[in-house]
Amino acid sequence: MSKQKKSSLQEKKGVSISEITNRSSIKSIQNKRKVKIDTVALVSSILKKDITALSRAITLVESKNPKHKEQANNVLKACLPHANKSIRIGITGVPGVGKSTFIETFGKHLTKLGKRVAVLAIDPSSTITKGSILGDKTRMEDLVKDKNAFIRPSASGDSLGGVARKTRESIILCEAAGFDVIIIETVGVGQSETTVHSMVDFFLLLKLAGAGDELQGIKRGIIEMADTIAINKADGGNLKNAKLAKVEFARALHLYPEKSSNWQPKVTLCSALHSEGINTIWDIILEYIEITSKNNFFDKKRHNQNKFWLIQTIEDQLKSDFFNKPKIKKELANQIQLIENNQTTPFAAADYLLNLNN
Amino acid sequence: MSKQKKSSLQEKKGVSISEITNRSSIKSIQNKRKVKIDTVALVSSILKKDITALSRAITLVESKNPKHKEQANNVLKACLPHANKSIRIGITGVPGVGKSTFIETFGKHLTKLGKRVAVLAIDPSSTITKGSILGDKTRMEDLVKDKNAFIRPSASGDSLGGVARKTRESIILCEAAGFDVIIIETVGVGQSETTVHSMVDFFLLLKLAGAGDELQGIKRGIIEMADTIAINKADGGNLKNAKLAKVEFARALHLYPEKSSNWQPKVTLCSALHSEGINTIWDIILEYIEITSKNNFFDKKRHNQNKFWLIQTIEDQLKSDFFNKPKIKKELANQIQLIENNQTTPFAAADYLLNLNN
Repeated sequence: MSKQKKSSLQEKKGVSISEITNRSSIKSIQNKRKVKIDTVALVSSILKKDITALSRAITLVESKNPKHKEQANNVLKACLPHANKSIRIGITGVPGVGKSTFIETFGKHLTKLGKRVAVLAIDPSSTITKGSILGDKTRMEDLVKDKNAFIRPSASGDSLGGVARKTRESIILCEAAGFDVIIIETVGVGQSETTVHSMVDFFLLLKLAGAGDELQGIKRGIIEMADTIAINKADGGNLKNAKLAKVEFARALHLYPEKSSNWQPKVTLCSALHSEGINTIWDIILEYIEITSKNNFFDKKRHNQNKFWLIQTIEDQLKSDFFNKPKIKKELANQIQLIENNQTTPFAAADYLLNLNN
Repeated sequence: MSKQKKSSLQEKKGVSISEITNRSSIKSIQNKRKVKIDTVALVSSILKKDITALSRAITLVESKNPKHKEQANNVLKACLPHANKSIRIGITGVPGVGKSTFIETFGKHLTKLGKRVAVLAIDPSSTITKGSILGDKTRMEDLVKDKNAFIRPSASGDSLGGVARKTRESIILCEAAGFDVIIIETVGVGQSETTVHSMVDFFLLLKLAGAGDELQGIKRGIIEMADTIAINKADGGNLKNAKLAKVEFARALHLYPEKSSNWQPKVTLCSALHSEGINTIWDIILEYIEITSKNNFFDKKRHNQNKFWLIQTIEDQLKSDFFNKPKIKKELANQIQLIENNQTTPFAAADYLLNLNN
């Protein structure tokens, strides 16, 4: 390049080449520094129990921006050694059972005992409607104002798996921020209870007393997952029915084989509205923690949950990679049709599709 | 090559080059013809209800030789249009419940009604011990001798998935051979009941009456799968306990939400040894077939089972391909250790392993 041409190029750009080099290297240093400062400062603030920092970190975890994902992973790694020290409680129950009132009363009970309480939610419906449980924080007015409580609405995401990941990662952040009790609420749509069950230490099922036949209409498998069933709104004219329901649930729980935790699930009555029976539930949870800590089930369960989420995440990704390929999508429909027409077996069709992928 | 050298080469081989060419082409034609004749003849014999041909075809399906697999697929394809016309019944129960005696008595009852009955088995333990249920055919002496019955021991295989595939394919062959009722027996080890449940129309659970508390110790989920529970050995001094057990099981079944089949699972008593209650069980099965055929559940269930096996086979293969890669195997162990040491999250570990694979 001639000196003249070079100079005209510099004029056009309005900066010298050396300037450009300088700027970009400065920017790169700034970027690196910014990321580094952000992450380090954020983690440091989280460890100092700064709620704003915690919120920002959760937002980072929830972000779909790849840069944020990298930052989020750095924050998570730094928080990990400070996590794992809380009690994680899953709470489920159909709409109308009084979950919000229960969590508010239960949460206040815990903060009065000096505990710091975080409430997260898994609501797969929010992935569609973008609405979410806990979104309307006015439902938990008192708990929201409590400086020892932290309430975070359900993350939105493309899939229950995505929401689950964000919630699991939020648990780590909340624990690093020194929360003693993490409550995960779910409305129990689709597979959400199973998802919550696989990330908590203790699973509480809220029920209402009805007109007998209490177990009718309960989603399959739910009873087996419950470590305790609490029959809410056990007050006034409801009390008699609630007591009958307690007997029936206790009987149903007794029918299942003993859990490997050596924990015999309990049934208890409560009235979240009148703050009755709440302390009993907390006592039950403490008893559970004591028993399962002694027999090592508590640690084993968390260990297995970690492994479960590792394997589950990999398997979900393998499946979605395969079934989302356009040629597989197209041929899958064809093969299903051939099976229906008795022209091929499911196994021959599977072989065909797998070969197509290789 | 000089004439001399060529000639000496021919001498060594003892044949002329043209001879070699001729021989190999003849052999190739023979091979092609042999495969073609075999498959066509085999299918034709199967359709003529030839039991020897059926046995040979099942052996083909069970073979690990890739050539046999191709032949097996051809036979299966040819049999498919003649399959799907039987009633497929799954039977499970713990050892000692009297499964062999039950199947013998039940099978004889059906052959007396003019039905042709095939008995297959899924026994995951046979994949390890190479022993198998039904292997000891002397347990069903009368049924073995019955010309309208066909008993085949459990296939062996590397995995439950492999055994399941062979059994599903054997069902097709048995149906093409004109069997009206296919019984799939399982001892209920591991996931074998779920496997059998997903390939039959009707699932029968055999139980014994004990000393009350009948549901204790029942494997999780089994009760939910049962279309009928038959309490066996309901005779003599056992009858009173059996009647009590019936009440308790009926109550337990009632607790579950209604099935989409609109079928309310039944509890019944029987004594296979004294041939009592066997006709009732067959009547229940006929009633089930009638109800579910009318409301279209019968076809829908088979349709869903086909889809289930297609997807399941693909997913199993994707997982096994991934997790059996040496580098993944090695790094998986490392990542699990890092998770345990709080140095990474299950999700970050999953991302790492998936990237390693790409």
